[in-house]
Amino acid sequence: MPRKRMNIATIRDVAALAGVAVSTASRALGKGSASPETRRKVREAAEQLHFTPSATARQLSNGHTRIIAIAIPEETTFIFHDPFIAAVVSQLTVSLSKLGYLPFLALVDSKDESGFVRLLESSGAEGMVITSFRYSKTFVSVIKNFGKPTIFIGRPPDNLDYPYVDIDNRQGGRLAAGALLQKGRSKALMIAGPKDMRAPKERSQGFAEVFAQAGGEIEVDEGRFALQHGYEAMGRHIRSGLDADSVFAQSDQIAVGAMQAMREHGVRCPEDVSIVGFDNLDVANVQPLSLTTVAQPVSDMAKMATDILTKRIETGVWVTRKKIFEVKLITRGSV
Amino acid sequence: MPRKRMNIATIRDVAALAGVAVSTASRALGKGSASPETRRKVREAAEQLHFTPSATARQLSNGHTRIIAIAIPEETTFIFHDPFIAAVVSQLTVSLSKLGYLPFLALVDSKDESGFVRLLESSGAEGMVITSFRYSKTFVSVIKNFGKPTIFIGRPPDNLDYPYVDIDNRQGGRLAAGALLQKGRSKALMIAGPKDMRAPKERSQGFAEVFAQAGGEIEVDEGRFALQHGYEAMGRHIRSGLDADSVFAQSDQIAVGAMQAMREHGVRCPEDVSIVGFDNLDVANVQPLSLTTVAQPVSDMAKMATDILTKRIETGVWVTRKKIFEVKLITRGSV
Repeated sequence: MPRKRMNIATIRDVAALAGVAVSTASRALGKGSASPETRRKVREAAEQLHFTPSATARQLSNGHTRIIAIAIPEETTFIFHDPFIAAVVSQLTVSLSKLGYLPFLALVDSKDESGFVRLLESSGAEGMVITSFRYSKTFVSVIKNFGKPTIFIGRPPDNLDYPYVDIDNRQGGRLAAGALLQKGRSKALMIAGPKDMRAPKERSQGFAEVFAQAGGEIEVDEGRFALQHGYEAMGRHIRSGLDADSVFAQSDQIAVGAMQAMREHGVRCPEDVSIVGFDNLDVANVQPLSLTTVAQPVSDMAKMATDILTKRIETGVWVTRKKIFEVKLITRGSV
Repeated sequence: MPRKRMNIATIRDVAALAGVAVSTASRALGKGSASPETRRKVREAAEQLHFTPSATARQLSNGHTRIIAIAIPEETTFIFHDPFIAAVVSQLTVSLSKLGYLPFLALVDSKDESGFVRLLESSGAEGMVITSFRYSKTFVSVIKNFGKPTIFIGRPPDNLDYPYVDIDNRQGGRLAAGALLQKGRSKALMIAGPKDMRAPKERSQGFAEVFAQAGGEIEVDEGRFALQHGYEAMGRHIRSGLDADSVFAQSDQIAVGAMQAMREHGVRCPEDVSIVGFDNLDVANVQPLSLTTVAQPVSDMAKMATDILTKRIETGVWVTRKKIFEVKLITRGSV
């Protein structure tokens, strides 16, 4: 049944419903010239009639597939274990779907340049959202090869001039420092994210700016944005005689791991050690001890990235190339 | 550079390297008749030369895209919060990539029939793996519309005659019951998975078979395969005066949630209540109290599903339509 219904509409029906000529409808669904108004009208008619241009027609007209690739240059296991990535992909799915786009998550190894390029090319993706980017020559080459509208969530390195949405990571670091200072903390262990990402660097800078200038001491332990990193770093520092009265965990996952290590070693939070996280994931609110953390507006970021990217696809113009969101401190019981 | 290298090879080069005629190479890369031997030879040559048929050529020859869709008819948030799904998708990615296939995870709402069909059609997916299937009329219609080789991980409902790989869920239930009986437990709370999935039903049956026949009593609490379900169910039962000396959690996530509720209420494990999980995820091994659980051979299942599906794509034949894997009990400290 559905097969019938879906194939029954032709470009003629779409044109009739939209009140335009067949050639106009065809152009509007493809890459030909058509006003945004006409494009939208025709597309709505096509949606309403469940009109799917045949693959051949699509190729010939070079039409829109509405397919968007989401690319995360990390190992798949990590992608699926990181709640922040989960939140970003979920929100992107919501906002892209709302506008009638069809997102997929690329699962090709980002080091497999040729595979990734083939996936992007063959799938007909007409746009790409990249998040959790870590610099990789190979993947940069993939992006350049792709050659279609691409946006980052999280600012890319300076030598990659692509539009992006991001948060004010430095401000987040400052807020975390302020929260600890307010409770009289003066020796912080900063369990940081990876060296080769921009966000952790900026969070560290913001934190140091405020904490060190107030006379505080900071020890840094860099690693992945992962529970395991928080757990191991904290355990290591406790075993070698903890010299800190506070922890700035650069992600909530790191914080949860650190708190687990603290519990196991009988270090009380916040009595012995205050801890502040980053992200404001669900988990921050369900742990036995609720986590004070810096909140990222993930849903707003995803919506904005979607808007910028899809407008670019539909009109050929980047309405903006950069959008920075404010963060805020969520005070709970861990500081 | 890469763009150059990737576009430089033509079908002629591929044919020459494979030692076949151009027409044969073309057929071998497309859907035309060619022996599996020839097909493999030509494809290897194509890989070696980074030969990508142009989109048009691909359409004309109706050739292979090597793109495989992974579909999980669940909400995106759930997909990304469930470590079992994470493990399945990761392992599928590994095994599909190894054979040169290009997997993506469909992120279209599985209730958006037309959207899902368009994604599958436009992306050129030539095969699909479905996991964590819950019966939905709409999605069944999507599968039928797709009309290309499709395999399930986890047995589909009886009215859907598709190939699948699965574990012996009933046997898993039996093993869990045996582990509890061996410690003299006789009153079990079974925190089960969703009603509308096949696996939980079979796990329950296997458990009841062994536990009830030994004179044990079973109370059932059904819900999602989620930490939250385990946490809430356990908390509810403890608050209303727990009458069980053991728990069969039908997933490790459920077990972790239940154990958290037990800790918060001062119920000791295994002294007061024994608990056995299902899946053998990483998490089973990192909790303060390590979890006795039924292990699923996720990697083997993914590899098998990949083999069956890709052979079907390459040869037109299902080498097998059904493969059931054994499970085994992993004994740790929670029983």
